[in-house]
Amino acid sequence: MNDRYESNATLDEIATRLRSSRRVILTTHAKPDGDALGSSLALGLVLDQLGIETQIWYMPPVPAMFKPLLAGMDVRLADGSHLPDPDYDDLVVVLDTGAVPQLSHIYPWLETRTDHIIVLDHHIEGDVGVADMRYVDRTAAATAEIVADLIDCLGDGPDRRTAEALFLGIASDTGWFRYSNVTPRTFEHAARLLRAGVDHYAIHDMSDQQHQKSRLDLMGRALASLELALDGRLAIMQLTQDDYRESGASIEDGHGFSELPQQIGTVKVSCLMAQNRSDHVKFSLRSKAGADAIDVNELAKRFKGGGHALAAGARFQGTLDEAKLALIQEVAQILGTD
Amino acid sequence: MNDRYESNATLDEIATRLRSSRRVILTTHAKPDGDALGSSLALGLVLDQLGIETQIWYMPPVPAMFKPLLAGMDVRLADGSHLPDPDYDDLVVVLDTGAVPQLSHIYPWLETRTDHIIVLDHHIEGDVGVADMRYVDRTAAATAEIVADLIDCLGDGPDRRTAEALFLGIASDTGWFRYSNVTPRTFEHAARLLRAGVDHYAIHDMSDQQHQKSRLDLMGRALASLELALDGRLAIMQLTQDDYRESGASIEDGHGFSELPQQIGTVKVSCLMAQNRSDHVKFSLRSKAGADAIDVNELAKRFKGGGHALAAGARFQGTLDEAKLALIQEVAQILGTD
Repeated sequence: MNDRYESNATLDEIATRLRSSRRVILTTHAKPDGDALGSSLALGLVLDQLGIETQIWYMPPVPAMFKPLLAGMDVRLADGSHLPDPDYDDLVVVLDTGAVPQLSHIYPWLETRTDHIIVLDHHIEGDVGVADMRYVDRTAAATAEIVADLIDCLGDGPDRRTAEALFLGIASDTGWFRYSNVTPRTFEHAARLLRAGVDHYAIHDMSDQQHQKSRLDLMGRALASLELALDGRLAIMQLTQDDYRESGASIEDGHGFSELPQQIGTVKVSCLMAQNRSDHVKFSLRSKAGADAIDVNELAKRFKGGGHALAAGARFQGTLDEAKLALIQEVAQILGTD
Repeated sequence: MNDRYESNATLDEIATRLRSSRRVILTTHAKPDGDALGSSLALGLVLDQLGIETQIWYMPPVPAMFKPLLAGMDVRLADGSHLPDPDYDDLVVVLDTGAVPQLSHIYPWLETRTDHIIVLDHHIEGDVGVADMRYVDRTAAATAEIVADLIDCLGDGPDRRTAEALFLGIASDTGWFRYSNVTPRTFEHAARLLRAGVDHYAIHDMSDQQHQKSRLDLMGRALASLELALDGRLAIMQLTQDDYRESGASIEDGHGFSELPQQIGTVKVSCLMAQNRSDHVKFSLRSKAGADAIDVNELAKRFKGGGHALAAGARFQGTLDEAKLALIQEVAQILGTD
């Protein structure tokens, strides 16, 4: 065994182990996103086709727009009161994470059977104790890229529905091919998935074009609050409880807003501050990629949060004004301008 | 000769004619966008490498953010007072358009030498009289896709700088791989261009991340004005002269705003109304793709404008309120709800 969070098995070995299984449970991190859903659904579809009994366990909320994709699959919700069968003794695959905190409600169940668990992941950090068998490829822009390769090891390549799930994963985790994680392989996967019949516009429509007007009203309010600090390098937007109430929008409606100020040339790091309660603020942090990128994972850690180097989150106890001052102070320190 | 706007030559024939030329002038439509600039620059770079003397003529404005790409090329601006040499008797290539109205200031010069002109285009409509030799591929998402194929006919495939120009063209004309014009071939081109050394994030940064704060202030104002009509199927945003003045933004800063309301599930067609003068409104029209798409080219024609089926523009003589009423009336008629 290897005590670093890296692969200790090949995709061929994982394919062999999957093929010899009778039943497989698939799961992923809490609040599954497009890649978590897409990569787990794709693998589930292929295992089903191989005659392997498959259950998919998600930790809610599952974004409503993606639910049509799951039709016909055995999808269950792991929450405080529901967990897989305690006597389950066949294989489990954990996708798109290997980090205990992200496994939330299902972790106590996973913890009792690590020798029956495979992790497939593309994240930097994870816990080696989660699974005996790991495939970790940090050069993959999405776990869906890894699953696409695994499906090749398992058989004939994806059918249209499987390809759609994989495409959703890749498009979601790359910001539609804009982020710095995209490689030539990402585009090669996308080309092949389109040749397998994916209607990429339908995926775009499902992912990005099914919102309520309240999202755009909230976006207008976020933009109206935009301020630059530290010579334009830090952008802060604030949404108050009143903004949510008056626009009729939810916290989820603000998804992606934190990226908007990156359109500004001077901006290196941006933050959306969402006031959950009068004394509680949620930070969504984004950094532009490049040589002078600010590591927002490190920034978030200063507020007991975390995430990725270019996208992270944290929670702040206090008012919006206090949150703003605290953030400016920390970023100034990181930039060496305090 | 063929009197329909379609190819009357192969890319190999065009490559042969280019190779036998001593000097080539490249031009494109007025107000060149990412594809116009990217495809013409890429062809220019390759012709230079073949030892063919190349001049590129653009009709302003050339977006400032793209100017660094043009460094070292012989780029000239065709306006009322500057045109290419009247005695020029070698080849001319017109890229990304074949429509007389889009050729603006340079058309009178082109008109005198149609037998020395090649058109490379992917648009639906164009004028057959512009050039004797035409290659029109409507399945290409961008003219840059056609140029990428032509470069294969000319030689070794693109170097890094040429690949960057081609990638810019493809990414711009597909809304970063979201629009319905994307095909498997689009992704195959993108993969190959990345393998040739393109830093796709640098292209994204140049295209989308070099704005002023005034753009986001203007975006906030546009969103604050958002109204839905016709059971949510029509979205209208209005920007007044005051909005531009108070935010310090220009008409160009509103580029892309007309797509924002497409995030709303009910919306079929969206319009950004920008007040140029107190009695003059510019319409930017967008339609979602799909079986029930509204042809905004047809809609724009009702206001003496035009463009593409999913993206078009027009000008309206009157106030914003008059413009809004007129637009609702026309869309209602198209939807059969008037």
